[in-house]
Amino acid sequence: MKANNNLRPRLKVRRVNLDTGRENVVVISRRSVALRPDVFRGFSRVELRSNGKALLATLLLTDDGMVEVDELGLADPAFRRFGEPVGTLVSVTPAASPESLEFVRRKIQGRSFSAPEIAAIIDDISHYRYSDMEVAAFLIGSASFMTSSELLALSKAMADAGTQIKWQRSMVVDKHCIGGIPGNRTSMVVVPIVAAHGLTIPKTSSRAITSPAGTADTMEVLARVDVGVEQMKEIVAACHGCLVWGGHVNLSPADDILISVERPLSLDTREQMVASIMSKKLAAGSTHLLIDLPVGPSAKLTTALEAMRLRKLFEFVGDHFGIAVEAIATDGSQPIGNGIGPVLEAQDVMAVLSNDPSAPVDLREKSLRLAAHLLDYDPELRGGKGYARARELLDSGAALKQMQKIIDAQGPSGVRTDLGTLTADVTAPRDGMVEAIDCLRFNRLARTAGAPIDKGAGIKLFKKIGDPVEKGEPLYRIYAFDQPEFELAQAAAKADNGYVIRTPVPGSENRP
Amino acid sequence: MKANNNLRPRLKVRRVNLDTGRENVVVISRRSVALRPDVFRGFSRVELRSNGKALLATLLLTDDGMVEVDELGLADPAFRRFGEPVGTLVSVTPAASPESLEFVRRKIQGRSFSAPEIAAIIDDISHYRYSDMEVAAFLIGSASFMTSSELLALSKAMADAGTQIKWQRSMVVDKHCIGGIPGNRTSMVVVPIVAAHGLTIPKTSSRAITSPAGTADTMEVLARVDVGVEQMKEIVAACHGCLVWGGHVNLSPADDILISVERPLSLDTREQMVASIMSKKLAAGSTHLLIDLPVGPSAKLTTALEAMRLRKLFEFVGDHFGIAVEAIATDGSQPIGNGIGPVLEAQDVMAVLSNDPSAPVDLREKSLRLAAHLLDYDPELRGGKGYARARELLDSGAALKQMQKIIDAQGPSGVRTDLGTLTADVTAPRDGMVEAIDCLRFNRLARTAGAPIDKGAGIKLFKKIGDPVEKGEPLYRIYAFDQPEFELAQAAAKADNGYVIRTPVPGSENRP
Repeated sequence: MKANNNLRPRLKVRRVNLDTGRENVVVISRRSVALRPDVFRGFSRVELRSNGKALLATLLLTDDGMVEVDELGLADPAFRRFGEPVGTLVSVTPAASPESLEFVRRKIQGRSFSAPEIAAIIDDISHYRYSDMEVAAFLIGSASFMTSSELLALSKAMADAGTQIKWQRSMVVDKHCIGGIPGNRTSMVVVPIVAAHGLTIPKTSSRAITSPAGTADTMEVLARVDVGVEQMKEIVAACHGCLVWGGHVNLSPADDILISVERPLSLDTREQMVASIMSKKLAAGSTHLLIDLPVGPSAKLTTALEAMRLRKLFEFVGDHFGIAVEAIATDGSQPIGNGIGPVLEAQDVMAVLSNDPSAPVDLREKSLRLAAHLLDYDPELRGGKGYARARELLDSGAALKQMQKIIDAQGPSGVRTDLGTLTADVTAPRDGMVEAIDCLRFNRLARTAGAPIDKGAGIKLFKKIGDPVEKGEPLYRIYAFDQPEFELAQAAAKADNGYVIRTPVPGSENRP
Repeated sequence: MKANNNLRPRLKVRRVNLDTGRENVVVISRRSVALRPDVFRGFSRVELRSNGKALLATLLLTDDGMVEVDELGLADPAFRRFGEPVGTLVSVTPAASPESLEFVRRKIQGRSFSAPEIAAIIDDISHYRYSDMEVAAFLIGSASFMTSSELLALSKAMADAGTQIKWQRSMVVDKHCIGGIPGNRTSMVVVPIVAAHGLTIPKTSSRAITSPAGTADTMEVLARVDVGVEQMKEIVAACHGCLVWGGHVNLSPADDILISVERPLSLDTREQMVASIMSKKLAAGSTHLLIDLPVGPSAKLTTALEAMRLRKLFEFVGDHFGIAVEAIATDGSQPIGNGIGPVLEAQDVMAVLSNDPSAPVDLREKSLRLAAHLLDYDPELRGGKGYARARELLDSGAALKQMQKIIDAQGPSGVRTDLGTLTADVTAPRDGMVEAIDCLRFNRLARTAGAPIDKGAGIKLFKKIGDPVEKGEPLYRIYAFDQPEFELAQAAAKADNGYVIRTPVPGSENRP
């Protein structure tokens, strides 16, 4: 039915002020002069064409006001992606599903994907040809089982879909954490240590989607993170490392789309997580990669067995593509450091790099351990000396100096970096010892307080697991700027403060 | 976080003129005085509360114009379902997913549903608590395998979710076709025959979703079909049968929601089809059910093996719930009758009932065969006499008289019943014999021409499989009212006329 676009009246582009997330959405009048929308009903997806451009979009109907009968309303991001000015004449036709959706249907019925099929799907997804529901069909259809070949093909296809960075070096090291632990900003300590040693570590990080901060959000407190590939290369040439936002570099763009659909559905498939991470590392040109796998009762991995299975998946993909992958299980039983939220986390990081006596010990120790693994990749370094070397670089101030150099190279970000002016302390309801801190709860609480939108919003923990507490003693402080959010966070903390405090057995310990 | 609804400013309800299909959608300003929408981003689903009412909805953002900073825009159908007037103050909170979505996640990971889990899911779905994407997750997660227990539980839960009709009779017969064959309006012949015999056959039918006509659309050419349960009972009491729209009776409302998501994804799972049909029959109070399973190259079932598997699923569910089910494979190699589209199909039906010599033989014969199966349920009738009795009722005019009675009881519909004024004949490109007619193609073609929105739009076939044709001889006629749609349909027919015409081997037959 594509042959006769010219037979129907075209519609004038209008911008509709509606943010529809990542999905292309267009609005047509129920009395449109083009094909009557009732006819479109059976299709729901339409294709726009103008000046050689084409766009697939989901169709909504309106009765009046929003668009005229001779207009086609383009919501954000459809308007931006179509890139034609208001008033441009476009033809609109009912759109069939992308052909690759047939592979998805077969997968749902139990077949496996071939590599070219996965490549076609990822190509369509990264060009916004899938609706959110079609993306969901791909993810869910693949969730119950994914073969080794599918995992490799998916990693490769996702890496191929975006920017691919080439480095003129034999060794490009990288680290990555699978996430879930509040305050876990080790990259911002590890990168300066490793870069100070002289290894190349061009770190790209994500922004928060549902968490209160991604490494890119926290680094932005100290420096600009939205740098392009060329500038990133210059920074790495000058400093051996960088800490930038991966989204601006456009590594594995399909991954961002898949994640935007996984999140609302809380889908969490191991193979998809591995493909997501490895595709970015492949595209980023990493040769040696350290994966941080936190294990804990409220972490993404709750048992050593789960961590081992995931480690093996990472190793399998790494081996196939010639990336030296090491995946290590770490303590994910509680938040790392004291701060949760960009400004508070940046303070922790700078305290560790400055050898401030009040710096959080767990953040320092974990960062040293991860840095040691990376430094041990250096053939020049004597076996087993990674940790000592990392500690030397941190204690001597070399790492701090390197961080300052990276910050200067990336330039100032201009974001507001003051701490939230509304504060409230949450206190211990009884005497005892901290037995557990719920990571999920604190991610949500810091987010409710305004992080990462307000960089200075978040939570500062005063007590960690094993600390004794007295009734009425502050457990943590909430920081916020916005009154309703502040009250919302306080109420949430009141309903469940996120701490488990074990009361000592009477007589077995002294009680005040 | 529900404890503190009163802490945040409430928003005023505004109606946003946007039809979002079946999904609840609300629009909030990016500068809203309630919680800032950036905070909502991580959630995407919100809960509205006012005057004891609650509604889950998907959130869209706007910069200005559409809603003010103190307003909450409710699109259709959210506005209708919330049922509060413009200006009502509502609280808006980020909404967690319905708890039953956790069962869906586990199913995706390979577990089976328990019956109470399925009941909880269907309850949430039928109360519009699932987003479209969450509905898709349920459907796709269940698509690759569904146990017998799951199939039974799903059929039961769907039946329980809506109206359940009780008949004070020991035998209530029904028929159902799985669809896919254009023009297949046998119900409109079968119901009057069976009702004329005196068996109770309260037929509820669907409207077209992506096809050019459902039986309810075609019946509406002759009579009103949107009758409620009570009136339906009166009609059946007077006429032994009826032909009404199931949607108005609210049988298995979850099914309509599931179908609205299955269609755009072209999901087609046997178990879901069986649960969908059987849930409606359970709710409708049927005791004896005949299922029509058309088999053909462009039908939903392409082999006898597929038809047998599906038959066994229907029998299994029927046996469990005490419904006598008979499922028979029928010829689905081409459209049934000559007309495709409501008015044309109604003409075929009335021609058969009137014993018009030009009536399509295939529609007559298939209807007689189906009616015979149903009549054979009557214990009063001598074994094997069903066909003869059906034919007697049709040939004598008793069926026509019964149809007139049903039409009178349902009353006039008031729809326009004239044929499309724009017509074009599509002719044979060469001499030969009709070897195949593509059902999918003709469904789409008639829909493109305007059916079922324009009752009089559609296709009239002049040639069926086995008919000899000469080059230039009309194969079918397109009827339309709308010029652009007329041209679109003609262009589509030009690109692929939907017929396969086999040229006779030269010399083996006479050629003109």
